Amino acid sequence: MRVGVVGARGYTGGELLRLLYMHPKVEVTYITSRQHAGKPVGIVHPNLRGLLDLKFEEFDVSKASEKCDYVFMAVPHGASMDITPQLLEVGLKVVDLSADFRLKNEEEYRKYYGPHKRPELLGKAVYGLPELHRKELRGAQFVACPGCMATSAIIGAAPVVSSFKVDLEKIVVDAKIGSSAAGREADESTHHPERTGVVRPYKVVGHRHTAEIEQELTGLVGRKVKVALSAHAVDIVRGILSTLHFFLEEGVEEREVWRAFRNFYSESPFVRIVKQRIGVYRLPDPKAVIGSNFCDIGFEVDEDSSRLVVLSAIDNLVKGASGQAVQCMNLMEGWDEGLGLNLPGLFP
Amino acid sequence: MRVGVVGARGYTGGELLRLLYMHPKVEVTYITSRQHAGKPVGIVHPNLRGLLDLKFEEFDVSKASEKCDYVFMAVPHGASMDITPQLLEVGLKVVDLSADFRLKNEEEYRKYYGPHKRPELLGKAVYGLPELHRKELRGAQFVACPGCMATSAIIGAAPVVSSFKVDLEKIVVDAKIGSSAAGREADESTHHPERTGVVRPYKVVGHRHTAEIEQELTGLVGRKVKVALSAHAVDIVRGILSTLHFFLEEGVEEREVWRAFRNFYSESPFVRIVKQRIGVYRLPDPKAVIGSNFCDIGFEVDEDSSRLVVLSAIDNLVKGASGQAVQCMNLMEGWDEGLGLNLPGLFP
Amino acid sequence: MRVGVVGARGYTGGELLRLLYMHPKVEVTYITSRQHAGKPVGIVHPNLRGLLDLKFEEFDVSKASEKCDYVFMAVPHGASMDITPQLLEVGLKVVDLSADFRLKNEEEYRKYYGPHKRPELLGKAVYGLPELHRKELRGAQFVACPGCMATSAIIGAAPVVSSFKVDLEKIVVDAKIGSSAAGREADESTHHPERTGVVRPYKVVGHRHTAEIEQELTGLVGRKVKVALSAHAVDIVRGILSTLHFFLEEGVEEREVWRAFRNFYSESPFVRIVKQRIGVYRLPDPKAVIGSNFCDIGFEVDEDSSRLVVLSAIDNLVKGASGQAVQCMNLMEGWDEGLGLNLPGLFP
Amino acid sequence: MRVGVVGARGYTGGELLRLLYMHPKVEVTYITSRQHAGKPVGIVHPNLRGLLDLKFEEFDVSKASEKCDYVFMAVPHGASMDITPQLLEVGLKVVDLSADFRLKNEEEYRKYYGPHKRPELLGKAVYGLPELHRKELRGAQFVACPGCMATSAIIGAAPVVSSFKVDLEKIVVDAKIGSSAAGREADESTHHPERTGVVRPYKVVGHRHTAEIEQELTGLVGRKVKVALSAHAVDIVRGILSTLHFFLEEGVEEREVWRAFRNFYSESPFVRIVKQRIGVYRLPDPKAVIGSNFCDIGFEVDEDSSRLVVLSAIDNLVKGASGQAVQCMNLMEGWDEGLGLNLPGLFP
Repeated sequence: MRVGVVGARGYTGGELLRLLYMHPKVEVTYITSRQHAGKPVGIVHPNLRGLLDLKFEEFDVSKASEKCDYVFMAVPHGASMDITPQLLEVGLKVVDLSADFRLKNEEEYRKYYGPHKRPELLGKAVYGLPELHRKELRGAQFVACPGCMATSAIIGAAPVVSSFKVDLEKIVVDAKIGSSAAGREADESTHHPERTGVVRPYKVVGHRHTAEIEQELTGLVGRKVKVALSAHAVDIVRGILSTLHFFLEEGVEEREVWRAFRNFYSESPFVRIVKQRIGVYRLPDPKAVIGSNFCDIGFEVDEDSSRLVVLSAIDNLVKGASGQAVQCMNLMEGWDEGLGLNLPGLFP
Repeated sequence: MRVGVVGARGYTGGELLRLLYMHPKVEVTYITSRQHAGKPVGIVHPNLRGLLDLKFEEFDVSKASEKCDYVFMAVPHGASMDITPQLLEVGLKVVDLSADFRLKNEEEYRKYYGPHKRPELLGKAVYGLPELHRKELRGAQFVACPGCMATSAIIGAAPVVSSFKVDLEKIVVDAKIGSSAAGREADESTHHPERTGVVRPYKVVGHRHTAEIEQELTGLVGRKVKVALSAHAVDIVRGILSTLHFFLEEGVEEREVWRAFRNFYSESPFVRIVKQRIGVYRLPDPKAVIGSNFCDIGFEVDEDSSRLVVLSAIDNLVKGASGQAVQCMNLMEGWDEGLGLNLPGLFP
Repeated sequence: MRVGVVGARGYTGGELLRLLYMHPKVEVTYITSRQHAGKPVGIVHPNLRGLLDLKFEEFDVSKASEKCDYVFMAVPHGASMDITPQLLEVGLKVVDLSADFRLKNEEEYRKYYGPHKRPELLGKAVYGLPELHRKELRGAQFVACPGCMATSAIIGAAPVVSSFKVDLEKIVVDAKIGSSAAGREADESTHHPERTGVVRPYKVVGHRHTAEIEQELTGLVGRKVKVALSAHAVDIVRGILSTLHFFLEEGVEEREVWRAFRNFYSESPFVRIVKQRIGVYRLPDPKAVIGSNFCDIGFEVDEDSSRLVVLSAIDNLVKGASGQAVQCMNLMEGWDEGLGLNLPGLFP
Repeated sequence: MRVGVVGARGYTGGELLRLLYMHPKVEVTYITSRQHAGKPVGIVHPNLRGLLDLKFEEFDVSKASEKCDYVFMAVPHGASMDITPQLLEVGLKVVDLSADFRLKNEEEYRKYYGPHKRPELLGKAVYGLPELHRKELRGAQFVACPGCMATSAIIGAAPVVSSFKVDLEKIVVDAKIGSSAAGREADESTHHPERTGVVRPYKVVGHRHTAEIEQELTGLVGRKVKVALSAHAVDIVRGILSTLHFFLEEGVEEREVWRAFRNFYSESPFVRIVKQRIGVYRLPDPKAVIGSNFCDIGFEVDEDSSRLVVLSAIDNLVKGASGQAVQCMNLMEGWDEGLGLNLPGLFP
């Protein structure tokens, strides 16, 4: 299948190219970047030098239509709502990695992002989290991939809120995240001497991903779920760890949590439950998933059974973005969900 | 004044030597290390080469008595309860940086640490957090310095629990901490290839510092305060950020929180309230306090006023250990609290 | 083909498992580790959890003989000379990643490593650098893989010493190297607080890899080549950059160097010549090859044409060890040299 | 003494403020920054919050004249040659940290930097390296501080070129340097995801500091010294290690090198000779000098006595810039050379 990547200069764009290069059923035929049009891909993504012989082009919908069967949108929020509708109109299948079509509710969108240009399309895209929407993704034409923090939070929270009595008003999601999540544009806050060595709280209330996490968890349990999300920048390039603190309304035992997690993800090849008694990597740590599409989840129950802590680790550029998008593509095309993605991460 | 440092090989020991070198009223006369007895200090602490002309000695109580007026105990937990009583008996003033004498309650000690050899001494030491115990510290003979995570958590929480109606059963303290806090002994988990790039949850329930945080906050408000502390190792050497999530039982406005913080710390020279509208460092970040004795605290109130997030940043080796110990010494001796400590940190 | 990895607990062992997992023609059937015998591979290599269902075993030559057609030796120097001869005797093909059989000359071995237990085997192994020994590797039974620093230095130097008049007595190789090259055993020098932030000269004269670099370059030009190798530990986990400083006896122009490099590596799929006028990655940088089998080389000529600086970057665990070993295996088996190895690295 | 810092927003400006805050004989009365005029210093230098109650102002020569006795110029190259002459004209003493007045020779300046606007002033400033020019610095009015790489290279090389027969045409200086040396302006190359994990050769021939190193060493030995300087960016924020490779024309013994180094720096309080047999820090490493004004130098002699390797480590912002400038000020004012600078660095 011929695929295009619109916005191929950024980190999620580059990661798509890396993953698609290894995918047995697709060929990348079209990559766009306004800034780098005409330049070979290796100037921007030095890991692809000598492997991928492609040049960036300016985006043009008729070119896209002609050269591709399938398009990944890896442009910033706001830009996708201009381009994606054009692609859908010419009959292309689209996975959108931006935030533009994740939310179903226009008001929620406005609250977190401002006015939407194409509100009639909100709700048209399948929310691209296979662990929750596997069935709807099969055969879908238009998919909106979750945010990276939302991915880790929802996968960690879904089995808990759907299995146990927890205080749904007081769920804390404390996220720690690498610098690549901020994108490829340099600014003062990402300047190496400033960004190195930080534990920088950057959005401790009102984080945008709150909206999609609440949308999905509320949809899952049928009652309003409220999430207190706080994000912190830490000194890694790739990776997210979300620590989820739940307050339990009645006691649980460890084996019940094990069972809930196992059942919930029995058909999810990319969720690993990590809770070991020995070794250095006893609980999820982004270090163990870097470069791979896995989401590692694990947990601990407070001795007095009043609190359940869930840990959820992903590579923000893979399971949190480009790998998940490929996973969605596999489902949309009716292929094996893990095609081209069953790759070990890089360690150490 | 002649001071000794028992256990001077570790990182808190080294940091004591750095700070005491710059202190105008003391001279270090005695440093001990079993492992390095006979060696010059610069072999172990390369920053002190050429500045401090001292050799490590084996610990001996009569030597200590003869050479010192005042002793810092920087040995691991468990070792202090053997040595500290000997020092007190010969009339030396002691600041203990270990956990051995922080708790007042023997049962609590046993629960978190195991049996105590000298339970009759529990409660004899002043808890060395000047921001809460300034008066008792003046003229004290025996002080037990708080743990690093406890320091950051208590300073962040104290004004909140004493000023606002918060759910005292559901306080989350999510801490991110550097590798120096684990001490100087190398093991598999601190091996550079393993420890680099992690966001490793290492004690997400049942962390030992829970006991002292609850002891101090409960003492402050007169009602049982329960703290849900989870600790994570991040890829920095020095520094702690504690993110405290409080659920509010009635709404607060930002200016009320400002006022509470300002009032609570009006006489505390090392607490800075950080909440800026511009710049890269708008909220507390350990990067802004590295090498200094400051504790930076800041906060955000959730839009719907249901949650208050407090951020508290320290250098674990300074305000979280050795700097705080010097601050305690200043108070014990009746000197200016900030003597020798009013030093800017290192940035960037 | 059924392959075994002896010494599968270390970083090169783990990297072999990662690469062999993705190789289309082999199956790993036997992995050994004294320390972890009986444990699943994922305890030690967390990136392989859920992918590779294998347990470590104790090494046993008859087991190896029964379960494998081909063995990778990933044990420390000194241990291989005990085991490898046993494997050869039972007819197994062996690639040895240790230093034990790299040198041809017993005296040189003794000078750098001490006495050799099986000196009669020195010279029996093909030196496993495909860029120099491609022909001998095809069909070979016993291969000794180069050291990581030697790989980067030889690939950088070979075209220069064989094409230009340089002072063969004054070649400086200044190497910068990541912490994974020191292996998996923790000690004081690799403790995270000590190893982070260093630029630590650790073997500035007399480095062991000097011997193999001189052996290979001398073999190539037919005259004694002397190499002044100095190694420095830098704060990365994977990666080596070797900076080679050559003093030219007569002037060269850039295009001549281009030509020499292009010709020398015209059939080497894993050598990329990197010398760009734009972008951030103009010259080789290990960051651009992490996780891949590429060796990036580039150069600059001094304005007055008196010096040629060559840069050579690899991932020490891939092209510097396990990837190169797989590349050797491909040649030994008569397969395509790049089989299973044409993978982009991870960026950023 | 009242001092001003022109260009106080950058990292060397911030470091001057940190050091001057601790200096017993000066008070900072005037700080300028075009970009941040009107803002408090703590917005830009978060380590100084609560300590230094100053606001940035626009530069104005009459203001400077009125408010200061002494000025540090911490503006970028090119800007100083406009401002410094104005300050000199109104009788202020100036230490210039830019490159504008370091070179004596206009042609050399033009070759490396382009045309100079005030060539008649070249040669008027004392080259601010106390280890070579202590006498001229005493009482001087105008000092040009060396570049950071030049400082480390010259201090490492001076005793060698003046004591031993080395090939003066083939001196290699291989420098590894932190990100703060590139200044405070963010760009693509310093974006955290790009700059983290690099060993990036960025100026392997034709580095500008070559000119001043050659000027000073040639001046010292009275014969043309040629330096082959190559610079590499490594993943630290502060610090430089320069590895100097000398080829010896006749053999030397270690004790002769010891003696040469000891003699050369017998009156230099900030040069430490580091060459230990035990411990982790046997040779110079920037990690051991971070935050301090020390230059650690050490060496190894090749077994066959053909090569001498010298290691030289500094903190680029202290001994490589602001600390050295304060050291020069102390000499200019006739104070003790180490006044306010005898501070241990931060470790670990």
